[in-house]
Amino acid sequence: MKALIISADNFEDTELLVPYYRLKEANLTVAVASISRGVIQGKHGYEVAAYKTLDDVNPDDYAILILPGGEAPMLLRKEPKVLEIARSFFVRNKPVAAICHGPQILISAQLLQGRHATCYHLVADELKEAGALYEDREVVVDGNLVTSRQPGDLPAFMREAMKQLETSRS
Amino acid sequence: MKALIISADNFEDTELLVPYYRLKEANLTVAVASISRGVIQGKHGYEVAAYKTLDDVNPDDYAILILPGGEAPMLLRKEPKVLEIARSFFVRNKPVAAICHGPQILISAQLLQGRHATCYHLVADELKEAGALYEDREVVVDGNLVTSRQPGDLPAFMREAMKQLETSRS
Repeated sequence: MKALIISADNFEDTELLVPYYRLKEANLTVAVASISRGVIQGKHGYEVAAYKTLDDVNPDDYAILILPGGEAPMLLRKEPKVLEIARSFFVRNKPVAAICHGPQILISAQLLQGRHATCYHLVADELKEAGALYEDREVVVDGNLVTSRQPGDLPAFMREAMKQLETSRS
Repeated sequence: MKALIISADNFEDTELLVPYYRLKEANLTVAVASISRGVIQGKHGYEVAAYKTLDDVNPDDYAILILPGGEAPMLLRKEPKVLEIARSFFVRNKPVAAICHGPQILISAQLLQGRHATCYHLVADELKEAGALYEDREVVVDGNLVTSRQPGDLPAFMREAMKQLETSRS
Protein backbone atom coordinates (compact mmCIF):
# COMPACT_ATOMS: atom_id res chain seq x y z
CA MET A 1 0.00 0.00 0.00
CA LYS A 2 1.28 3.47 -0.89
CA ALA A 3 0.78 6.92 0.63
CA LEU A 4 1.25 10.31 -1.03
CA ILE A 5 2.47 13.46 0.73
CA ILE A 6 2.32 16.69 -1.28
CA SER A 7 4.39 19.57 0.06
CA ALA A 8 6.94 22.25 -0.84
CA ASP A 9 9.54 24.53 0.76
CA ASN A 10 8.71 26.00 4.16
CA PHE A 11 6.56 23.07 5.20
CA GLU A 12 5.86 22.71 8.92
CA ASP A 13 8.52 20.11 9.68
CA THR A 14 6.66 17.88 12.15
CA GLU A 15 3.44 17.99 10.11
CA LEU A 16 5.31 16.35 7.26
CA LEU A 17 7.77 14.14 9.17
CA VAL A 18 5.41 12.70 11.79
CA PRO A 19 2.96 11.33 9.17
CA TYR A 20 5.90 10.29 6.95
CA TYR A 21 7.49 8.18 9.69
CA ARG A 22 4.14 6.92 11.01
CA LEU A 23 3.06 5.60 7.61
CA LYS A 24 6.45 3.93 7.12
CA GLU A 25 6.11 2.36 10.57
CA ALA A 26 2.91 0.74 9.25
CA ASN A 27 4.91 -0.58 6.27
CA LEU A 28 3.43 1.76 3.69
CA THR A 29 5.61 3.09 0.89
CA VAL A 30 5.53 6.88 1.19
CA ALA A 31 6.08 9.15 -1.82
CA VAL A 32 6.72 12.87 -1.39
CA ALA A 33 5.75 14.98 -4.39
CA SER A 34 6.45 18.66 -4.93
CA ILE A 35 6.44 21.37 -7.59
CA SER A 36 9.82 20.27 -8.83
CA ARG A 37 11.97 17.23 -8.10
CA GLY A 38 14.64 17.69 -5.40
CA VAL A 39 15.07 18.56 -1.77
CA ILE A 40 12.43 20.62 -0.01
CA GLN A 41 13.22 22.36 3.24
CA GLY A 42 11.02 22.84 6.29
CA LYS A 43 10.64 26.00 8.37
CA HIS A 44 12.85 24.41 11.04
CA GLY A 45 15.51 23.33 8.55
CA TYR A 46 14.69 19.64 8.03
CA GLU A 47 15.27 18.47 4.46
CA VAL A 48 13.10 15.93 2.67
CA ALA A 49 13.72 14.50 -0.80
CA ALA A 50 10.77 14.93 -3.16
CA TYR A 51 11.39 12.21 -5.73
CA LYS A 52 8.31 13.08 -7.76
CA THR A 53 6.98 16.19 -9.43
CA LEU A 54 3.24 16.78 -9.41
CA ASP A 55 3.10 15.69 -13.04
CA ASP A 56 4.70 12.35 -12.10
CA VAL A 57 1.82 11.53 -9.76
CA ASN A 58 -0.90 9.09 -10.73
CA PRO A 59 -3.35 9.41 -7.82
CA ASP A 60 -4.70 5.91 -8.50
CA ASP A 61 -1.41 4.53 -7.17
CA TYR A 62 -2.04 5.82 -3.64
CA ALA A 63 -4.35 4.81 -0.79
CA ILE A 64 -4.14 8.11 1.10
CA LEU A 65 -3.21 11.76 0.50
CA ILE A 66 -1.52 13.77 3.28
CA LEU A 67 -1.39 17.59 3.09
CA PRO A 68 0.95 19.05 5.75
CA GLY A 69 0.90 22.74 6.69
CA GLY A 70 3.42 25.54 6.93
CA GLU A 71 3.78 27.95 4.03
CA ALA A 72 3.87 25.19 1.41
CA PRO A 73 0.07 25.05 0.81
CA MET A 74 0.11 28.75 -0.17
CA LEU A 75 2.34 27.83 -3.12
CA LEU A 76 0.70 24.51 -3.88
CA ARG A 77 -2.87 25.80 -4.07
CA LYS A 78 -1.89 27.74 -7.22
CA GLU A 79 -0.90 24.53 -9.01
CA PRO A 80 -3.81 23.09 -11.05
CA LYS A 81 -2.24 19.61 -10.86
CA VAL A 82 -2.45 19.60 -7.04
CA LEU A 83 -6.14 20.48 -7.17
CA GLU A 84 -6.74 17.76 -9.74
CA ILE A 85 -4.97 15.16 -7.55
CA ALA A 86 -7.01 16.18 -4.49
CA ARG A 87 -10.26 15.96 -6.49
CA SER A 88 -9.32 12.50 -7.69
CA PHE A 89 -9.06 11.27 -4.07
CA PHE A 90 -12.47 12.73 -3.24
CA VAL A 91 -14.16 11.30 -6.34
CA ARG A 92 -12.89 7.83 -5.38
CA ASN A 93 -13.74 8.39 -1.68
CA LYS A 94 -10.15 7.69 -0.65
CA PRO A 95 -8.76 9.23 2.57
CA VAL A 96 -7.39 12.79 2.48
CA ALA A 97 -5.76 14.09 5.68
CA ALA A 98 -4.94 17.82 5.84
CA ILE A 99 -3.51 19.73 8.81
CA CYS A 100 -2.97 23.40 9.71
CA HIS A 101 -2.65 25.31 6.39
CA GLY A 102 -3.04 22.05 4.41
CA PRO A 103 -6.83 22.53 4.02
CA GLN A 104 -6.12 25.66 1.92
CA ILE A 105 -5.45 23.29 -0.95
CA LEU A 106 -8.89 21.72 -0.51
CA ILE A 107 -10.46 25.19 -0.39
CA SER A 108 -8.88 26.07 -3.74
CA ALA A 109 -10.04 22.70 -5.13
CA GLN A 110 -13.60 23.61 -4.03
CA LEU A 111 -13.92 20.36 -2.13
CA LEU A 112 -15.18 21.62 1.25
CA GLN A 113 -18.74 22.76 0.52
CA GLY A 114 -20.95 21.34 3.30
CA ARG A 115 -18.08 19.36 4.83
CA HIS A 116 -17.23 19.26 8.53
CA ALA A 117 -13.60 20.35 8.83
CA THR A 118 -11.00 22.20 10.86
CA CYS A 119 -7.70 24.01 10.14
CA TYR A 120 -5.19 26.47 11.60
CA HIS A 121 -7.12 29.24 13.40
CA LEU A 122 -5.97 31.92 10.92
CA VAL A 123 -7.42 29.87 8.05
CA ALA A 124 -10.82 29.39 9.72
CA ASP A 125 -12.56 32.37 8.05
CA GLU A 126 -11.43 31.27 4.64
CA LEU A 127 -12.62 27.74 5.37
CA LYS A 128 -16.09 28.97 6.33
CA GLU A 129 -16.29 31.16 3.22
CA ALA A 130 -15.59 28.04 1.16
CA GLY A 131 -18.77 26.51 2.63
CA ALA A 132 -17.16 24.21 5.19
CA LEU A 133 -18.73 23.58 8.60
CA TYR A 134 -15.80 24.70 10.73
CA GLU A 135 -15.16 23.07 14.11
CA ASP A 136 -12.47 24.07 16.58
CA ARG A 137 -11.39 20.53 17.57
CA GLU A 138 -8.10 18.57 17.45
CA VAL A 139 -9.44 16.40 14.65
CA VAL A 140 -12.59 16.42 12.53
CA VAL A 141 -13.56 13.41 10.44
CA ASP A 142 -16.18 13.71 7.69
CA GLY A 143 -16.30 10.65 5.46
CA ASN A 144 -12.93 10.37 3.70
CA LEU A 145 -11.76 13.73 5.05
CA VAL A 146 -9.56 14.07 8.17
CA THR A 147 -8.51 17.58 9.26
CA SER A 148 -6.58 19.00 12.21
CA ARG A 149 -5.50 22.45 13.43
CA GLN A 150 -1.81 22.38 14.37
CA PRO A 151 1.22 20.23 15.30
CA GLY A 152 -0.08 19.47 18.81
CA ASP A 153 -3.04 17.71 17.16
CA LEU A 154 -0.79 15.20 15.35
CA PRO A 155 -1.63 12.27 17.68
CA ALA A 156 -5.38 12.59 17.00
CA PHE A 157 -4.73 13.38 13.32
CA MET A 158 -2.67 10.25 12.74
CA ARG A 159 -4.99 8.08 14.86
CA GLU A 160 -7.87 8.95 12.52
CA ALA A 161 -5.76 8.77 9.36
CA MET A 162 -4.61 5.26 10.29
CA LYS A 163 -8.22 4.25 11.01
CA GLN A 164 -9.17 5.38 7.50
CA LEU A 165 -6.43 3.18 6.05
CA GLU A 166 -7.57 0.17 8.07
CA THR A 167 -11.12 0.67 6.79
CA SER A 168 -9.92 0.90 3.20
CA ARG A 169 -7.79 -2.22 3.71
CA SER A 170 -10.71 -4.32 4.94
CA MET B 1 -0.54 3.44 30.66
CA LYS B 2 2.24 6.01 30.94
CA ALA B 3 5.46 6.62 29.03
CA LEU B 4 8.56 8.52 30.16
CA ILE B 5 10.83 10.55 27.87
CA ILE B 6 14.03 11.88 29.43
CA SER B 7 15.77 14.66 27.52
CA ALA B 8 17.35 18.11 27.81
CA ASP B 9 18.30 21.12 25.68
CA ASN B 10 19.66 20.44 22.20
CA PHE B 11 17.69 17.24 21.78
CA GLU B 12 17.27 15.95 18.22
CA ASP B 13 13.80 17.34 17.57
CA THR B 14 12.25 14.46 15.63
CA GLU B 15 13.76 11.82 17.92
CA LEU B 16 11.80 13.34 20.77
CA LEU B 17 8.66 14.53 18.97
CA VAL B 18 7.97 11.47 16.80
CA PRO B 19 7.89 9.07 19.80
CA TYR B 20 6.03 11.69 21.86
CA TYR B 21 3.22 12.01 19.30
CA ARG B 22 3.22 8.27 18.48
CA LEU B 23 2.73 7.26 22.11
CA LYS B 24 -0.04 9.83 22.52
CA GLU B 25 -1.69 8.47 19.35
CA ALA B 26 -1.83 5.11 21.18
CA ASN B 27 -3.53 6.88 24.11
CA LEU B 28 -0.57 6.74 26.48
CA THR B 29 0.09 9.61 28.85
CA VAL B 30 3.57 10.89 28.05
CA ALA B 31 5.73 12.64 30.65
CA VAL B 32 8.86 14.54 29.63
CA ALA B 33 11.44 14.83 32.41
CA SER B 34 14.62 16.91 32.37
CA ILE B 35 17.36 18.26 34.62
CA SER B 36 15.16 21.14 35.68
CA ARG B 37 11.47 21.89 35.18
CA GLY B 38 10.64 24.14 32.22
CA VAL B 39 10.93 24.37 28.47
CA ILE B 40 13.68 22.44 26.70
CA GLN B 41 14.66 23.38 23.16
CA GLY B 42 15.68 21.11 20.33
CA LYS B 43 18.54 21.63 17.86
CA HIS B 44 15.97 22.71 15.25
CA GLY B 45 14.20 25.10 17.61
CA TYR B 46 11.18 23.07 18.69
CA GLU B 47 10.20 23.66 22.32
CA VAL B 48 8.86 20.98 24.64
CA ALA B 49 7.63 21.49 28.19
CA ALA B 50 9.37 19.27 30.74
CA TYR B 51 6.87 19.19 33.59
CA LYS B 52 9.02 16.95 35.76
CA THR B 53 12.55 17.11 37.10
CA LEU B 54 14.52 13.87 37.34
CA ASP B 55 13.90 13.85 41.09
CA ASP B 56 10.14 13.97 40.47
CA VAL B 57 10.26 10.69 38.54
CA ASN B 58 9.16 7.43 40.08
CA PRO B 59 10.12 4.89 37.40
CA ASP B 60 7.47 2.46 38.67
CA ASP B 61 4.83 4.80 37.24
CA TYR B 62 5.92 4.21 33.63
CA ALA B 63 5.61 1.32 31.19
CA ILE B 64 8.39 2.47 28.84
CA LEU B 65 11.45 4.74 28.86
CA ILE B 66 12.40 6.66 25.69
CA LEU B 67 15.87 8.20 25.34
CA PRO B 68 16.08 10.54 22.29
CA GLY B 69 19.40 11.71 20.86
CA GLY B 70 21.00 15.02 20.01
CA GLU B 71 23.35 16.64 22.51
CA ALA B 72 21.01 16.07 25.46
CA PRO B 73 22.39 12.61 26.44
CA MET B 74 25.88 14.13 26.89
CA LEU B 75 24.44 16.26 29.71
CA LEU B 76 22.09 13.63 31.07
CA ARG B 77 24.67 10.85 31.42
CA LYS B 78 26.36 12.90 34.17
CA GLU B 79 23.19 12.87 36.28
CA PRO B 80 23.16 9.95 38.75
CA LYS B 81 19.34 10.08 38.90
CA VAL B 82 19.07 9.35 35.15
CA LEU B 83 21.29 6.30 35.49
CA GLU B 84 19.25 5.12 38.46
CA ILE B 85 15.99 5.48 36.50
CA ALA B 86 17.42 3.56 33.52
CA ARG B 87 18.64 0.75 35.82
CA SER B 88 15.21 0.51 37.40
CA PHE B 89 13.64 -0.19 33.98
CA PHE B 90 16.21 -2.91 33.28
CA VAL B 91 15.82 -4.56 36.69
CA ARG B 92 12.07 -4.80 36.09
CA ASN B 93 12.57 -5.87 32.46
CA LYS B 94 10.45 -2.97 31.19
CA PRO B 95 11.06 -1.59 27.67
CA VAL B 96 13.80 0.99 27.15
CA ALA B 97 14.09 2.53 23.67
CA ALA B 98 17.19 4.65 22.92
CA ILE B 99 18.13 6.25 19.60
CA CYS B 100 21.20 7.98 18.15
CA HIS B 101 23.15 9.44 21.14
CA GLY B 102 20.48 8.15 23.58
CA PRO B 103 22.40 4.89 24.25
CA GLN B 104 25.22 6.99 25.82
CA ILE B 105 23.04 7.12 28.92
CA LEU B 106 22.88 3.32 29.01
CA ILE B 107 26.66 3.14 28.56
CA SER B 108 27.16 5.37 31.61
CA ALA B 109 24.64 3.27 33.54
CA GLN B 110 26.74 0.18 32.65
CA LEU B 111 23.69 -1.58 31.27
CA LEU B 112 25.02 -2.75 27.88
CA GLN B 113 27.48 -5.52 28.78
CA GLY B 114 26.76 -8.44 26.40
CA ARG B 115 23.71 -6.73 24.93
CA HIS B 116 22.96 -6.50 21.21
CA ALA B 117 22.53 -2.80 20.42
CA THR B 118 23.06 -0.01 17.93
CA CYS B 119 23.55 3.78 18.09
CA TYR B 120 24.73 6.80 16.07
CA HIS B 121 27.83 5.81 14.11
CA LEU B 122 30.09 8.18 16.07
CA VAL B 123 29.02 6.49 19.32
CA ALA B 124 29.74 2.95 18.06
CA ASP B 125 33.29 2.68 19.46
CA GLU B 126 32.17 3.77 22.88
CA LEU B 127 29.29 1.29 22.75
CA LYS B 128 31.66 -1.58 21.95
CA GLU B 129 34.05 -0.53 24.74
CA ALA B 130 31.10 -0.75 27.12
CA GLY B 131 30.77 -4.44 26.19
CA ALA B 132 27.80 -4.16 23.81
CA LEU B 133 27.50 -6.31 20.70
CA TYR B 134 27.22 -3.48 18.16
CA GLU B 135 25.17 -3.97 14.99
CA ASP B 136 24.82 -1.45 12.16
CA ARG B 137 21.07 -1.90 11.59
CA GLU B 138 18.03 0.42 11.66
CA VAL B 139 16.79 -1.23 14.83
CA VAL B 140 18.21 -3.83 17.22
CA VAL B 141 16.01 -5.54 19.78
CA ASP B 142 17.52 -7.47 22.69
CA GLY B 143 14.96 -8.38 25.33
CA ASN B 144 13.58 -5.16 26.79
CA LEU B 145 16.11 -3.02 24.89
CA VAL B 146 15.29 -1.29 21.56
CA THR B 147 18.03 0.80 19.91
CA SER B 148 18.32 2.70 16.61
CA ARG B 149 20.97 4.78 14.86
CA GLN B 150 19.41 8.03 13.60
CA PRO B 151 16.18 9.91 12.69
CA GLY B 152 15.66 7.93 9.46
CA ASP B 153 15.31 4.80 11.60
CA LEU B 154 12.33 6.19 13.51
CA PRO B 155 9.73 4.02 11.70
CA ALA B 156 11.52 0.79 12.69
CA PHE B 157 12.34 2.18 16.14
CA MET B 158 8.72 3.01 16.94
CA ARG B 159 7.42 -0.23 15.37
CA GLU B 160 9.54 -2.23 17.83
CA ALA B 161 8.86 0.09 20.78
CA MET B 162 5.10 -0.27 20.22
CA LYS B 163 5.48 -4.08 20.00
CA GLN B 164 7.21 -4.06 23.38
CA LEU B 165 4.28 -2.14 24.86
CA GLU B 166 1.76 -4.57 23.39
CA THR B 167 3.68 -7.47 24.91
CA SER B 168 3.77 -5.80 28.31
CA ARG B 169 0.03 -5.04 28.01
CA SER B 170 -0.88 -8.67 27.36
